[in-house]
Amino acid sequence: MSREFFATRTVAQALAAFTPALRTPAQIVPLSDALGRVPVRDVLAPAPLPGFARSTVDGYAVRATDTYGASEGLPSYLDIVGAVRMGAQPQVVVSAGTAVEMPTGGVLPEGADAVVMVEYTSETMPGMVEVLRPVAPGGGTVRADEDAAIGAALVPAGRPVRAVDLGMLAAAGVTEIAVHARPRVAILSTGDEVVAPSTATLRPGQVRDAIAPALAGLVLEAGGWPMPCGIVPDDLPALRGALGTALAQADLVVVSAGSSVGVRDATAEAVAGLGKPGIFCHGIALKPGKPTLLAECDGVPVIGLPGNPLSALVVFRLIGAPLVWRLAGCATPPPEPSVTASLSRAVPSEAGRRDVVQVQLSGGRAEPVFGASALLSVLTRADGYLVVPEPATGLDAGSPVPITLYR
Amino acid sequence: MSREFFATRTVAQALAAFTPALRTPAQIVPLSDALGRVPVRDVLAPAPLPGFARSTVDGYAVRATDTYGASEGLPSYLDIVGAVRMGAQPQVVVSAGTAVEMPTGGVLPEGADAVVMVEYTSETMPGMVEVLRPVAPGGGTVRADEDAAIGAALVPAGRPVRAVDLGMLAAAGVTEIAVHARPRVAILSTGDEVVAPSTATLRPGQVRDAIAPALAGLVLEAGGWPMPCGIVPDDLPALRGALGTALAQADLVVVSAGSSVGVRDATAEAVAGLGKPGIFCHGIALKPGKPTLLAECDGVPVIGLPGNPLSALVVFRLIGAPLVWRLAGCATPPPEPSVTASLSRAVPSEAGRRDVVQVQLSGGRAEPVFGASALLSVLTRADGYLVVPEPATGLDAGSPVPITLYR
Repeated sequence: MSREFFATRTVAQALAAFTPALRTPAQIVPLSDALGRVPVRDVLAPAPLPGFARSTVDGYAVRATDTYGASEGLPSYLDIVGAVRMGAQPQVVVSAGTAVEMPTGGVLPEGADAVVMVEYTSETMPGMVEVLRPVAPGGGTVRADEDAAIGAALVPAGRPVRAVDLGMLAAAGVTEIAVHARPRVAILSTGDEVVAPSTATLRPGQVRDAIAPALAGLVLEAGGWPMPCGIVPDDLPALRGALGTALAQADLVVVSAGSSVGVRDATAEAVAGLGKPGIFCHGIALKPGKPTLLAECDGVPVIGLPGNPLSALVVFRLIGAPLVWRLAGCATPPPEPSVTASLSRAVPSEAGRRDVVQVQLSGGRAEPVFGASALLSVLTRADGYLVVPEPATGLDAGSPVPITLYR
Repeated sequence: MSREFFATRTVAQALAAFTPALRTPAQIVPLSDALGRVPVRDVLAPAPLPGFARSTVDGYAVRATDTYGASEGLPSYLDIVGAVRMGAQPQVVVSAGTAVEMPTGGVLPEGADAVVMVEYTSETMPGMVEVLRPVAPGGGTVRADEDAAIGAALVPAGRPVRAVDLGMLAAAGVTEIAVHARPRVAILSTGDEVVAPSTATLRPGQVRDAIAPALAGLVLEAGGWPMPCGIVPDDLPALRGALGTALAQADLVVVSAGSSVGVRDATAEAVAGLGKPGIFCHGIALKPGKPTLLAECDGVPVIGLPGNPLSALVVFRLIGAPLVWRLAGCATPPPEPSVTASLSRAVPSEAGRRDVVQVQLSGGRAEPVFGASALLSVLTRADGYLVVPEPATGLDAGSPVPITLYR
């Protein structure tokens, strides 16, 4: 099995055409666990909201017609026939020529169709209010179904639940909802030189596994559930065994491959025979990140990442994170923060390839951070990254470029 | 106690001058729990990283001087004296006229100062490599301390830990770090009409508590820990008692106040006497959100929010969330996603006041979502919001405006 058998794809092609059908199953969660989760279906209002015609101001419930023509010079005089208490059914009815004291949020009494703000009234005699401005029917109120009609979608399927959605659900008495389970993302590291982060003393040539913990962070940010699966030596049977175990337990398997020539294609070899339809592409027109493998084994997607930390994390951010969202039923991942900055120096690129360049920001200028793909510090020093799109052969110094910001 | 005793502040004044000194204590967390948490101090590299001079390419370790002048027409011929294995100390030394096979990531052997990429070599005779291009000293390698020098800051204090930071910490063998505890944010709701979201059947005039669950979501987004403290009736002793209990347990107390005139100042009255220095301001030059109270009781900040959901959530997003970050030791909250859009219609405002206007986005156009502050749907229908700054008297139709996007 050789890489040459598989076409290289652009990032856009990979995102559009690599579409495993797997979606995580539904689970019921209380509102306190629902933030950022993706509803499996629209959540519909079981009853109108707020459920009753409600005052939005402090003032007097009236018949609007009783206020027509009212002015400071010629007020309407209305008899105060009662007051509405918060949280209680009004015990009075508004008839022609009368008014009822209303608190903000109170129930509009029968007979009334508007509330005059207290600021536009004057109570010069006990038991009588002067209305100094007219109010239109509906003024100073919300309708019984103005926040949501019965059956309206309180929260849509497929979009992560926002803070305010929790409020809307609570208002409707919906205290738990069906959301997609968090995608379980198996994270495998490979390499004879790679040892666990907890290794106190390294032997010469050993490095601690930096990619798996960073990937776990990116998986969490994408709403997934990282499953650390440890470190596998550069050994085909061992890798195949570990992949098989991971495929049986996870919704997505991510392997950070060895980066040397000898082991670079090991993931492709190991994936072969583990399930259908198999390899989608081996190679993405992306820098850094070219030697990326995408495969699907009986419905479970597999991403083979390059072995260099910078490359691996760029690829996972561009291709892995949207896939995690999609597995959870969210087709369009939430937006990321960004800013436009002036490029401090020219950035070369090759046409046909997407380049991701880390940048530091200072005073509206974006300074590229260059360095070997082996260096994590290229990423930790960066405030964000810019993208040189496929058609471009580079970006000129001074050009305004959109920067995606790290949070 | 009346509101008139306290000056109204702008949002900027409130953020700059309302600065309770409280910071949450340090706690030790493993890397798996560290994403988004705020380190209490710089985490320093205990040793250089990667710890050894390392090849960044597949190729041959050489003395750079042996390659000077090499070309396709006139290669340098070097004797291959061994090979470096991944994760192991080289057993060979590179002397003048010799080369050692190198995998990407291998330890640079003694005597070598560069690695020639395999693509720029040719092995035409067994045991001998032709070098077709010169390499400079240091070429094809990273230094032993190029990712981090000993004592360098791997992760800075005061900035939420990012995914890649987890990788850098892991590489250095740092598997747990000291971060600020999540600020405990007590959330109190008030109002005789307000009942728990779990209430199946409402009596006329009752509404379920929508603000507390939505605030809990915003607290989580800001890295805090929501502490739901239930619903208090519009009763001064009850509110004072609940506030006292919350102040004793929380790092920040948030009260969504009753919105009717009679109870609007209850939070201010209840806060008085609960601790020093007391009320900072009662009133923010913000729409919606004017009747906001900021206070500090013996170090613990208190935010009294307006009773309308839209107003309460706008205020908490603008003033509460940055305060939660600050309590956790983060002076500058992480950036939020944004986009520039063309305003579909003119938006009026008053000079001296900041207006927050919810908008829907469609094809690069921002359409304001208008509606009563009592309506949650104004927020749930919005894709984000725009801000009319204090000096402006409005925004013109067609003007490009920055929109902060909801995630």
